[in-house]
Amino acid sequence: MPTENPSNLEVKAQPSKPRITTKKLAALVSKKDGKAIQKIFIKVPDIDIAEAANTLTPTELIFIFRCVESKYTAEFFDELDQDAKENLVKAMTDKELVQIVNQQAADDVADTVGEMPANLAQKVLQAADKTMRKDINTLLNYKENTAGSIMTTEYLELLDTLNVDEAIDTARSRGREAETIYTIFVRDIQRQFVGTVDLDDLIFAKKDQTLHDIMNLDVVSCSTATDQEEVGQMFRRYDLNALAVLNDDNRLVGIITIDDAVDVMTQEATEDIEKMGAITPTRGESYLKTSATKMAFKCVPWLVILLVMGTLSSLVLSQFDDKIAAIPILASFLPVLMDGGGNSGGQTTTLMVRGLALKEFGPKNFGKVLWKEFRTALLTGLIVGAFAFIWFMMEQYTGIVTWKSDAGNPINIFAGNCWTWDFFQIAGLTSLVTAASLGLTILVAKVIAVCLPLGVAAMKKDPALMSEPLLTTVADVAALLIYFGLAELWIMPVINLV
Amino acid sequence: MPTENPSNLEVKAQPSKPRITTKKLAALVSKKDGKAIQKIFIKVPDIDIAEAANTLTPTELIFIFRCVESKYTAEFFDELDQDAKENLVKAMTDKELVQIVNQQAADDVADTVGEMPANLAQKVLQAADKTMRKDINTLLNYKENTAGSIMTTEYLELLDTLNVDEAIDTARSRGREAETIYTIFVRDIQRQFVGTVDLDDLIFAKKDQTLHDIMNLDVVSCSTATDQEEVGQMFRRYDLNALAVLNDDNRLVGIITIDDAVDVMTQEATEDIEKMGAITPTRGESYLKTSATKMAFKCVPWLVILLVMGTLSSLVLSQFDDKIAAIPILASFLPVLMDGGGNSGGQTTTLMVRGLALKEFGPKNFGKVLWKEFRTALLTGLIVGAFAFIWFMMEQYTGIVTWKSDAGNPINIFAGNCWTWDFFQIAGLTSLVTAASLGLTILVAKVIAVCLPLGVAAMKKDPALMSEPLLTTVADVAALLIYFGLAELWIMPVINLV
Repeated sequence: MPTENPSNLEVKAQPSKPRITTKKLAALVSKKDGKAIQKIFIKVPDIDIAEAANTLTPTELIFIFRCVESKYTAEFFDELDQDAKENLVKAMTDKELVQIVNQQAADDVADTVGEMPANLAQKVLQAADKTMRKDINTLLNYKENTAGSIMTTEYLELLDTLNVDEAIDTARSRGREAETIYTIFVRDIQRQFVGTVDLDDLIFAKKDQTLHDIMNLDVVSCSTATDQEEVGQMFRRYDLNALAVLNDDNRLVGIITIDDAVDVMTQEATEDIEKMGAITPTRGESYLKTSATKMAFKCVPWLVILLVMGTLSSLVLSQFDDKIAAIPILASFLPVLMDGGGNSGGQTTTLMVRGLALKEFGPKNFGKVLWKEFRTALLTGLIVGAFAFIWFMMEQYTGIVTWKSDAGNPINIFAGNCWTWDFFQIAGLTSLVTAASLGLTILVAKVIAVCLPLGVAAMKKDPALMSEPLLTTVADVAALLIYFGLAELWIMPVINLV
Repeated sequence: MPTENPSNLEVKAQPSKPRITTKKLAALVSKKDGKAIQKIFIKVPDIDIAEAANTLTPTELIFIFRCVESKYTAEFFDELDQDAKENLVKAMTDKELVQIVNQQAADDVADTVGEMPANLAQKVLQAADKTMRKDINTLLNYKENTAGSIMTTEYLELLDTLNVDEAIDTARSRGREAETIYTIFVRDIQRQFVGTVDLDDLIFAKKDQTLHDIMNLDVVSCSTATDQEEVGQMFRRYDLNALAVLNDDNRLVGIITIDDAVDVMTQEATEDIEKMGAITPTRGESYLKTSATKMAFKCVPWLVILLVMGTLSSLVLSQFDDKIAAIPILASFLPVLMDGGGNSGGQTTTLMVRGLALKEFGPKNFGKVLWKEFRTALLTGLIVGAFAFIWFMMEQYTGIVTWKSDAGNPINIFAGNCWTWDFFQIAGLTSLVTAASLGLTILVAKVIAVCLPLGVAAMKKDPALMSEPLLTTVADVAALLIYFGLAELWIMPVINLV
């Protein structure tokens, strides 16, 4: 739509429909309409523009970049995806690069550089000024998924003896470089981190009070080695805007801001979901951008592990194939029974993994959780078992599942009449065995599903990881043993009478 | 530990180990040591104290409450759990209640009142002053899970013609009542919402600039009816500190702050996880506080639905029980095959549901997603199928799974020698049929697993809800049809030769 007038852009955002499209941007570029492009940057959030700009050609991209007022360039660059960033870096002059790099936050540049090919990374690092280069190198050295790797080195740290007026003046003069000034970090004369001051408290305070008078003492902090999952939990629990990252000497070395914490929480939730779905975590990579081959290699390992563990089920079934041959109807109920065990155990695993991730409970609450889940499982098993009995009777009564068949043609031996001794004995007995097995399997699966994740968590491993496949296997085996055990006990003695 | 000296409390928080215990608090209360309790409130985050205080008796609780300096009471009260809050409300004098209620944010009081028995809710509402009471009633009327139900009515809204100095003065005088002053909302003379000003921009601005000069125009907003999931997505996408909630006339009626948005994102992730785990969502209720009966009733419905849908598998199996009777080894591989289909489909469902929740793609990308997943599935099916063939051969070679058995005693007809024609023909054929079925099932399951969630999403329903049980059922049926179809084609013609 090259004729569209960009001044008609709406002010209200509809997040599901970005208000600027690649087509529109490309049209403005081909018309060399720099004014219209600048107008877009005033009215549209940078992330929306960046999303539209990602698929432009490098030439179009650099044109837009050169139109943009300097106060927008840093954020716009940051919101682009990695490919677009690399194209821009290639196309930019050294002077442009110097400007863009030093306008950005060191942690953002470090993230970008970390994924770039060496020659481009080199070009970016050369453009960075001395302090920035040092910061980037420091950040790149922290282990992935630690507080150190997600923190920023640009913050406002003030001495606790400053008074309110001095603090506000300093915030005015030095705050622009900081990632946030809503939380001001306070140190004492020994450079020890002693507390924080919220900007609003600073504004509400009397002018002659010192930071020491008004700072919060009930602050939390983490170290550079703290796992990012724990960082997310701290933000959630303490409603933080920013978190202090300290070194071993209790000195501030970085801060983590809420927007980065939100990204971490999202990433951690995705990882837990993926692990529970038996996929190797994609680690924040976008689905559409990951190649099919890469995706397949994230799926294959778990399927192979599950296949190997499934051998146990085959082994058990193999022991009972004479029973199946004698009573083929047992095979008909196998999927329902095994799905029932896996599904009910899966419910409990889900609750456990999520509860552990949100720190609602931990391995130390094992007894309490097991007791609650045992009662839940007992009740669930009873209700589902009772329903299943009626359902299985119904299935046999209608001939959906039959006791005997003749060369693939099912024979409804009850011919729609359930008031016969045969029906009560044969259909009743098989339904009873299957329903009782289902109820018992639910009980066993749910109890195992408590023990596995909590056990894994007690060993300080990730409970999302091994719980599901292990559970499926154990629940399957339990279901088969219960099923054929009950069949042996209750059906086999009767079968010769039929 | 009644002898412990509370002045020894550490300043650094260890989020996994709350620094104050119920025991310690109870000991201080029994010693009537108000000073020590006050000291705790200075050094320990309120949430940690509230967690320790939740299980105290009402008398102990009210003692602590009466010790606390007034600036801590509101937050402390807010962090307590519902039972403790109700106990406190019962125990408080009317005067105390008036103070505590009017210190709080209207949205927090509305949340508390919404869950209280009528007589206590009445007592709280009577204590609220007129404006507060009106706000609470308004908030209570918004539908659950909408922006209206999570917003707060306490914000700073200024006229766009104010200059920077006037704005800072107003923030100083009126900002204390607002939930945040980090984002200041700007209206024009017609009370229309026109933009926002970040507090740091206000501080950095020149004193004679007006809010109109410095406000952000690229702002997003939502309406009171916007779903809270979408609110979470907007915070994530636009890195917001606070979001404007507008009515139909484009006037500001409330704001949502980042801490409430974080709670929403966590709750939405939990709900998705629970739905995928086939549990009726717990809606933010804590696991340990939900009764076993309630928990069972969240698990039973899905198990029953899955049981009923499983009928289809039973029906299919019932048609093939003559094949199982003739070739019992087919039954041995059933669990592996069916688990393989469910698991590989589950992987894709997981990716789809999470990708849809994070708006990485939508139903409009159906073709692109399907094509990617088709290639992934093809590759996954080939690799897993190839591995499975070798594995199944191995299982038969070692006698883990056997072709024939005699009254429950497996007979390894190959006696450890695989270089016979029999082994190649029988074991090779069954392994081939099972492995090929597994590979095909993976392909089919993954393709179905793309169609179901995207189809459900296209119908504007929640993709997490029905995808998993439907998928399991469809994948099971597909697996059985493929398996017995191939067995009919490839094994049956040979079987008479054995």
